[in-house]
Amino acid sequence: MRTIAIDAMGGENAPEAIVKAVLKAKNEMPETKFLLFGDKEQLRELIPADQINDQLGVVATTETIADEDEPVKAIRRKKDSSMVVAANFVKEGKADALLSLGNTGALLACGIFIIGRIKGIVRPGLMPTLPVQNSDDGFNMVDVGANAKSKPEYLLQWAEMASYYAQKIRGIDNPRIALLNNGAESDKGDDVHQKAYELLKDSDLNFVGNIEGNELLLGNADVVVTDGFTGNAVLKNIEGTSSVILHLLKDSLLNGNLMTKMGALMVKGSLASLKSKFDTAKYGGAVLLGVNAPVVKTHGRSNERPIYYTLKQVDKMIKEKLVEDFRDEFSEK
Amino acid sequence: MRTIAIDAMGGENAPEAIVKAVLKAKNEMPETKFLLFGDKEQLRELIPADQINDQLGVVATTETIADEDEPVKAIRRKKDSSMVVAANFVKEGKADALLSLGNTGALLACGIFIIGRIKGIVRPGLMPTLPVQNSDDGFNMVDVGANAKSKPEYLLQWAEMASYYAQKIRGIDNPRIALLNNGAESDKGDDVHQKAYELLKDSDLNFVGNIEGNELLLGNADVVVTDGFTGNAVLKNIEGTSSVILHLLKDSLLNGNLMTKMGALMVKGSLASLKSKFDTAKYGGAVLLGVNAPVVKTHGRSNERPIYYTLKQVDKMIKEKLVEDFRDEFSEK
Repeated sequence: MRTIAIDAMGGENAPEAIVKAVLKAKNEMPETKFLLFGDKEQLRELIPADQINDQLGVVATTETIADEDEPVKAIRRKKDSSMVVAANFVKEGKADALLSLGNTGALLACGIFIIGRIKGIVRPGLMPTLPVQNSDDGFNMVDVGANAKSKPEYLLQWAEMASYYAQKIRGIDNPRIALLNNGAESDKGDDVHQKAYELLKDSDLNFVGNIEGNELLLGNADVVVTDGFTGNAVLKNIEGTSSVILHLLKDSLLNGNLMTKMGALMVKGSLASLKSKFDTAKYGGAVLLGVNAPVVKTHGRSNERPIYYTLKQVDKMIKEKLVEDFRDEFSEK
Repeated sequence: MRTIAIDAMGGENAPEAIVKAVLKAKNEMPETKFLLFGDKEQLRELIPADQINDQLGVVATTETIADEDEPVKAIRRKKDSSMVVAANFVKEGKADALLSLGNTGALLACGIFIIGRIKGIVRPGLMPTLPVQNSDDGFNMVDVGANAKSKPEYLLQWAEMASYYAQKIRGIDNPRIALLNNGAESDKGDDVHQKAYELLKDSDLNFVGNIEGNELLLGNADVVVTDGFTGNAVLKNIEGTSSVILHLLKDSLLNGNLMTKMGALMVKGSLASLKSKFDTAKYGGAVLLGVNAPVVKTHGRSNERPIYYTLKQVDKMIKEKLVEDFRDEFSEK
């Protein structure tokens, strides 16, 4: 039986949305066990007593890591927090994967310091799946902020892991790998990106060259590799820009004249589907690639549906033995 | 009389849109002379003969730098290109500022290698004005790609020049300066950004701290300083993300059912105003801060209106003696 350790106390809708998603997933994934870590009282209230069984357990914890907590300090000091106890379960082999909606930095620290790096991986990288314009496939971007400083060798390893993930978990044959850079030519960028270009070109990956910031959402690559600093700025900027535009759109429709308002009602459905296209949560969570178990972060604002999809994503990662394959691949080198 | 040297051959709508903008500007700016550099035949055809006078001249050139030309090679080899000849006019004091819609890299090279850096400025930086959500003021971001590699000292100088620009040209009192970083805390980022934070904090600037990629368009800063690599990725990403969303929006409205299509007609005006909000061209062009004359790039897709606004922006920079002030300020240090 596969076991997912779930931090039930992280995120804006915790623990309700998390419990709901688990109850839904549980019925559809009979070979998977769900362990919820968090406040016993709250969880017992939300979970019908007859649902607690071999497939669903609660592990009582007394602390919660807040979004504003300093990550490394928080995981050291809050030993009985839902996130840290869940990570320890994974470390000790009592669970196979860790899922949280909480403090991203703390989750990265749990992955790196508690669960640990895969031997041979220099630095783990954080990888979300993001939407593209003309397809439902999306693309992976790595690293989006696990590392403030990146070396070319890290980028190569992230590309290798992400390429394998895209094949095995997303079902993409021969994924196209691109490097986020400030121009198309091979000599573009600073030293890190010039060297990364060379490493990617000389690798066995299906490297399609540099990609620029304006092309990301066009679907020209299945995996975009970037240093963690730029990746973080760009990821947040995609979220910020799309949110501002959709907000302005709503505003301009609601505050328009009578005709605009009537028209707004008539196009409502279309706009909702557009918004859902840019709801990055539907692609599941961001994966911390390179640690000894699947560690996945779902957006803190997620409600039941994206959490449910993330549970399926995590389950698939365990089932496909992704981490075992990484271990074989990278420890040999 | 102030004289603007205009590369009439750069951009998608050259030379027509450029000539139109100049003819319009000419009547409203009687103290300014416009020198158009480009193909004599084409320009003569577009300019009514009675318009050529003390205020409007044509300088015939035989070459054009293409967008795909390698910048530094292009300015060395295409000596008689509209852009290079215009830059030489500025260098020789026959014009006060340079405006182009052409190859950005080549224009930067003209600014840096032909017109030259201001003494005391280590590296010039490229600075556009971008839109924000709740105001028409926008914000400045620097550097967006003149430098692939940036040092903390560059960021401080860019912030100083941009702050002065925001006051003097945009009329903003005590501009709020922020640093693009991967978190709010002062110790965030790599070495460059940590050090830049210290320099900005210790400066006389109104430094309001770090800003993250998702906050850029919210209007919390008047000037955002960033290393040129990240700035380039983020600027292009703002353009790419907004263009993809507006494209999807159009698509979903046009391909909807009959009711959606009718609604779309009714909200058309609202959507057009939204699009214009994200038409970055209306804020004028991107300024290469730190060279010996105003050098301004307008988007290659610009039509008459944004070029006209950019002419006014360039004229104000000459009139306000921005470069002279930078020279006084930085050569003393």
